[in-house]
Formats: sequence, C-alpha cells, structure tokens
Amino acid sequence: MRNILVIGSGKSTSYLLKYLLDKSTDENLFITVGDLLIENAKKLINTHPNAKAITLDVFNESSRVNAIKEADIVISMLPARFHIEVAKDCIAHGKHMVTASYVSEDMQALDTAAKAKGLILMNEIGVDPGIDHMSAMQVLDNIRDQGGKIILFESFTGGLVAPESDNNLWNYKFTWNPRNVVVAGQGGAAKFLQEGTYKYIPYHRLFRRTEFLDIQGFGRFEAYANRDSLKYQNVYGLNNVETLYRGTMRRVGFSRAWNIFVILGMTDDSYTIDDSENMSYRDFVNAFLPYSPTDSVELKLRHALKIDQDDIVWDKLVELDIFNAHKMVSLKQATPAQILQKILMDKWTLASDDKDMIVMYHKFGYELHGEKHQIDANMVVVGNDQTYTAMAKTVGLPVAIATLAILNKKIKSPGVQIPITKEVYTPILEELKDFGIVFNETEVPYLGYNPLNN
Amino acid sequence: MRNILVIGSGKSTSYLLKYLLDKSTDENLFITVGDLLIENAKKLINTHPNAKAITLDVFNESSRVNAIKEADIVISMLPARFHIEVAKDCIAHGKHMVTASYVSEDMQALDTAAKAKGLILMNEIGVDPGIDHMSAMQVLDNIRDQGGKIILFESFTGGLVAPESDNNLWNYKFTWNPRNVVVAGQGGAAKFLQEGTYKYIPYHRLFRRTEFLDIQGFGRFEAYANRDSLKYQNVYGLNNVETLYRGTMRRVGFSRAWNIFVILGMTDDSYTIDDSENMSYRDFVNAFLPYSPTDSVELKLRHALKIDQDDIVWDKLVELDIFNAHKMVSLKQATPAQILQKILMDKWTLASDDKDMIVMYHKFGYELHGEKHQIDANMVVVGNDQTYTAMAKTVGLPVAIATLAILNKKIKSPGVQIPITKEVYTPILEELKDFGIVFNETEVPYLGYNPLNN
Repeated sequence: MRNILVIGSGKSTSYLLKYLLDKSTDENLFITVGDLLIENAKKLINTHPNAKAITLDVFNESSRVNAIKEADIVISMLPARFHIEVAKDCIAHGKHMVTASYVSEDMQALDTAAKAKGLILMNEIGVDPGIDHMSAMQVLDNIRDQGGKIILFESFTGGLVAPESDNNLWNYKFTWNPRNVVVAGQGGAAKFLQEGTYKYIPYHRLFRRTEFLDIQGFGRFEAYANRDSLKYQNVYGLNNVETLYRGTMRRVGFSRAWNIFVILGMTDDSYTIDDSENMSYRDFVNAFLPYSPTDSVELKLRHALKIDQDDIVWDKLVELDIFNAHKMVSLKQATPAQILQKILMDKWTLASDDKDMIVMYHKFGYELHGEKHQIDANMVVVGNDQTYTAMAKTVGLPVAIATLAILNKKIKSPGVQIPITKEVYTPILEELKDFGIVFNETEVPYLGYNPLNN
Repeated sequence: MRNILVIGSGKSTSYLLKYLLDKSTDENLFITVGDLLIENAKKLINTHPNAKAITLDVFNESSRVNAIKEADIVISMLPARFHIEVAKDCIAHGKHMVTASYVSEDMQALDTAAKAKGLILMNEIGVDPGIDHMSAMQVLDNIRDQGGKIILFESFTGGLVAPESDNNLWNYKFTWNPRNVVVAGQGGAAKFLQEGTYKYIPYHRLFRRTEFLDIQGFGRFEAYANRDSLKYQNVYGLNNVETLYRGTMRRVGFSRAWNIFVILGMTDDSYTIDDSENMSYRDFVNAFLPYSPTDSVELKLRHALKIDQDDIVWDKLVELDIFNAHKMVSLKQATPAQILQKILMDKWTLASDDKDMIVMYHKFGYELHGEKHQIDANMVVVGNDQTYTAMAKTVGLPVAIATLAILNKKIKSPGVQIPITKEVYTPILEELKDFGIVFNETEVPYLGYNPLNN
C-alpha cells in the first residue's frame, strides 16, 4: 500500500478524496485524512476500507511529524499560511508534497533542499492558481512550438453561482471565502499592459473599468483587473507581449453596483467603526453620508452617487436590505468590510440546493508567418450540490491527479514546482477531461486590445 | 544679554527674526541663527549688531551642543523630524525650547525630564497648529467660564494665494510644501462627528464632501475634512460635543477639480511608474485611461469622468497643460504624486510679485441658560511679499512672542506644552493684534450641522 496523508478536510476536499478512494484499490492506496475536527472527513470517507480519519493539530509538532513519517506523499489543504511547517517536515523525512496554494517566499526557499533530496513540492495546482496555469501554458507552448510569437494574453476566472441557482439581482452568491470577495482589489493600483503601455487603475476605479466576455450557452460576463497582471509574465515566457491582463469574472452589472460600496467606503478594512455593535444596517450606511436633520438615508445615498430612481443598481441595494433600521450589525469594533460582509452573507449564502459554477476565459494573440491570430479558450464547470461543488472539483481533482502522478513517477522533476511544464500539465489536463473539465478553444480574428471590440 | 539660538533659517523665519531683532536692544537679546546654509540667515539679519549667523549641522553633535550651551533658549525651525536631538540637548543643558511643529511621541516622552528641570518645551505654536489652538481655546474657555456648554466646534484653515495675485482658474498656488498638498487626505478615511454620530469619508470621496464658508470682504471658500478631526477632542475638553469637524480651506471649485486627479489615481504615492522619465505629460494622463487605437486622451478622460465640454473643470485641466505631448516628466522611477507635483509646479509656483494669504475659520456652538448660540470667528492675513509672507508671519510671530515671553517668565509652566492655556494664549493673541493678526467674531443663529444651511 502507498500511504497518502491529506491534511485538512474542508470544503475543497470532497472530489479530492473521492478521486483517491475510487482509485485506491487499483492503485494500492491508503488515505489518511488528518484534521483538528474530523467530522467532515468521516462523512466523506464513510466506511471505505482504504481510508481513515485522524485528529491532527498542525501546530502540534509530534502529532504532525508522526503522521507525515507514515506517509509516502502529503497533501496540504490547509489555509496557505499553515503549509510551511508541513513542507519542512516533508523535506526532513523525505516525502513529496502537494498544495493548491500560491508559492510563498518561505516555500520557495525550500527549493534547493527539495532538489537535493529528489523531492517534489508541487504548489498552485488547484483551479486559480492551477487549471489557469496548465490550460494557458498548453496553448502558449503549442503556439511557440509552431514558431508563433505571443503578443497578447488575457486570462479571467470567476467563482459564481450556477445559472439554475441564480435568483438574485446581483447574479452572485458566495461560493468561496466571502472576505476575499469583500476586500478584492484593495492594497494598491491594478497594473497591466495594453498594447505596449503600462496602465494603472486605482482601487476606487477598478469596478468601473470592466471588460465583457461572452461564453456560448452561458451568456455575457464582465471582468475587473487583478492587482498584478504581470505576476507570471516571466514564468509564462511573455516578456515581449504587448498586452497582458488578468481579471476576475462576474455577471454583467455586478461591478457597477459593487462600486457603490467601494465609493462610499464600505469595503474599507483598515479601521474599526465606533460602537458598530449597536448599529443597524441603516446606521452603517448613514455613517458614510453627511448628517441631515431631514433628508433620508436613501435620498442622501442617491444624491451622493447620482443614482436615478429607476436605475437597477438601486434595486440591488434594496434587495440587500441595507436600509433596514431594525437589523443590527451586532459585531463589536468591526471594520466596514466586516460589517458589509455580514450584510451580504444574509443574502448571498448558498441555499442547501444551490449549485456553484467556475468559469475561466483565456485569450491568446500571436503572430505566425507574418499574420496575426487569436485563440479564445473557455471552461465552465457547474457543481453537483453543496458538497460536490464546482470549486471543490476544480481545486481538488488537479491536486489528486498530480498526487497520484507523482506517486506513479509520471511527474518526476524535483523542487518547488508550479504546473507549467508539459510533463505536468499534459497528463493532468487530459485526465480532467474525463471529469468534464474541458476547454473550448476557438480561432477568432485578432483584434488586439480595444474596448470598442468588447 | 540673553542669547537666543534659532536653528533653521528657511521660509518661515523672516518675521520671527524681524520681531526678535526689533526687540533686541530694549530686551537685551542676542540672536544666533544656525543653519547648514547661512545665506538666507545673513540676508535676514543684514548688518544688525545684535545677531550673527553660524554654520550649524544639526547632525554634528559637538557643533549642535556647543551652540545650544551658549543659548538661554532655543528655537528649532527645522523640519519636525529633526527636533528631537535638539530637545534632548536642551534638557541636558537646561535650556527652554520652542517649535511650531506637532508634538511627536519622542517629544512627549521628554515631559517628565523637562518638568524635573523646570524647562519649557513649547510646541505647536505656529499657525496650524498654533494660532488655531490659541484662538479656539480663548473662545471655548470664555464660553465655559460663563457656564456655557459647548455642543459644536468646527475649525478650518487654508494657505492660499492672496486675491490680488489670484489669476488662475484653480484660485490656488503653492504657498507651502507642494508635496503636502498633492498627498493631502491620504492614509485612511477621514473621521468626524456630526450631530452626535461618527461620520467617515474615504479618500476618494473627500473632495466631493466639502462645506462652504463665507468671509466678509473675501467671499466664499470651501473646506474638505482633515483625516482626524477628533485629535484634539480631549485636549480641548470637547468630549461631550455633538459636532466636531476640522478641515482645510480652498476657494470654491478647487476640490471638485482636484477630485479628478484623485479619481484617476494621479495622487497615488505608493508605487512608481515604469519609465516615467521618458513620459510626456500626456502619456502620464493616458496611463490612467484605457488603451484605444483611435480615441483621444481628452475624450477618454471626459468619458471616464463624465465631464461635459462646457464644464469649468475641463478648462482647469487644460490650463495645467496636462495633455501636452511634448512636455516631458523627466523624473526617474517617480510615483504618480511626484509627477503630478511637477506638472502643478509649472503653473502654481508663486511669481516674484505674488502674495499669499492665510485664512482661518472657527464655529462654536453652545448652550447657555437653556438657549443655543453660535459664534463664528475668522481671521485673514495677507502677505507683504515673497519674503514677508502671510505664512511666515503667522508661523513665525507666535514662535517669537512665545520665546520672549518664556525668557521674561510670563510663560512659566514647565514640561512639553502646546498653547492651550490662558497663561500662554492670552498675551500672545493680544500681541498678535498689533501685527494685524485679528479674529473677527460674530454671533450668529445656532444652526447645528446641516448641509442645507451652508
């Protein structure tokens, strides 16, 4: 038996465990799931003979080290900041490791030690980062293998509610960490390349500078820029591109309405509101508007943001019940972002029969034999239910497939890795197709970046 | 002879030195001006027998200590961050000290040591902070002495161009540190109290939430909120007020136009622009607008900010020549704020015959014998020329008067002080009147805070 240790049994482990359990007999696998709380792990494992759940406190060194010692490979599905201790133990005891998280500086620093021991520390192999890397690199490498020169790359991902569960005016529900949604885009100007020039968008303009994207059968989406579109420029070999843009996808109209919260200051996470505990939702909104002895909060907000009474964004605000004088914030010394998150969770939490959806969209512009071409590629994955979500599927399956491929020595290059080499992405993308994770590629006329073409 | 050491001989020392030199014979004063560059000091002292200029490097301990040892009192007109070493030497060698700067934490930490030696470290005794403290506390104390209860305090200051030199569309020129103007309001939401509730304004809304203020003979002004209006709430004894607001004054229309720079992201000082050196002013503006193969920078900006062609803010932008494709930024790796500052300095630098102006406006609301009252008080000081500016006058005279009052033991309370006690403000405000620095107080109907009353 080959022993796989999975640390963490949260939302994104359902498909990961199912994949490994389904293969366990043929592949001779025994899966140990370790977590502080093992209820979810037990439910997912059920009575499967090739798996067990153990209580594991990642901060307890001896319990952590003992579990790692017994494994042949370790998957860490913990929040990213907890990976590093696991990674150090893996190196100390000669184990491979797989995570879906961004490579931290601390993780990168283990590269030499990992290579010296022939160990693979595979990271960024979920959906975003993960499937985005693999699907982009496959097309980019293919273009370059033909002698093409890449001049444009745009890439967009969104975690959304599935069309059949899409029943609010925002066309949005929280399918992942709500906090990340509320503070998205903060911390500095978004920077990207458009037709050879650097462009900068301050946070308070980010949601007014969207692009449109159409996906056949799913309609129109919009995207706002990520903070650093240039992050993978070097890694992807795109140092000479004219346009490089990465963004987050929403349904059209989300961003214009979200911008109201940004402009009012409700997404600010840098200070706390006095006596937030005893505020109503209405008081919270009013804290960002001038005092008036007579005028309503509603009219002050409409006037401040110049919102016409028949503008749909107004209905979106009303739908969230933000003007309710009786619903209480009930959070002590909370930041505006924390309060807004609470208000949104009242309305944007998935119902028990709701399904989520992951969408991804790449554009590749290139020159080949003196002519310009463009390939658009998109992927849509819809969840099955609240356990087997699209998010769990697209995060967990690449992790699981990579883990088995490492065990089976199909992935061999040691060191701190991300899935951007043919050795890694080819078998994984191929196997993902069996699970319905497929990119639709189409050749389209090369248009370059031009907002009028959207 | 009593020896006064003045460290620093920059823009704000003209009136300070003139005051001390004019009093030097009657008061037996000898003034030593120490600076790294002594040209300006020599010009201001001229051939006056009771003064000399010496080269003094504040970072050279022995030269600093020797100069301080020979003084009876030390005035530091250096930038605020350089005061602390001087202050420590003053305590070590038993000298009083006066500055116009905000009390830093390091300065405050010297309070016990200063008191133990009976020394006065007087700070915040320029114009803002300084005259604002004194003029406000005089009225506040007076109201309280009569048994009144303060319910509202608003205070506004502005450094502006004098009406006779006001010849651009912005009604503004740089009369002090341009950098502070460009980054004003950054670093967190502005917070204040209006009619008993805390209000918060994010930076990108700050310049759209102005109040109007009228001063007889000078017309209408506007004010935007300072970041922390509550800073002196405790010190002024205003813990039970309903409204507390501090702001910065500009001519009406400045803020609406300035907001364009804020919204585009041109005031950001947190990152550098790639290849800023080789950018034209036009390129700089274009970096904050979407790429287009056809549309002009002008139309893209008008569209992004919804500016009509006949809107005066458009003329304000054109006046600054920001669309010029030939004027070069010529600053290496500059932040947006640094580039904007350069563009503005082309147009907003005072001409040799220009005069500056300081305006200050306080509103005091109070209850006395069951009735509500309001006192408005304002001050306008216009400069004489580019040496004897309104800024130098209002900063330097309170410093000089306080220095002499300390020497003459009219101000006696030891420790780290700011001018908020009767002992300090009464004689200084009285003497300032001789120099035309006068507050006009008027009783007005109490209106509370209400934007409709502005």
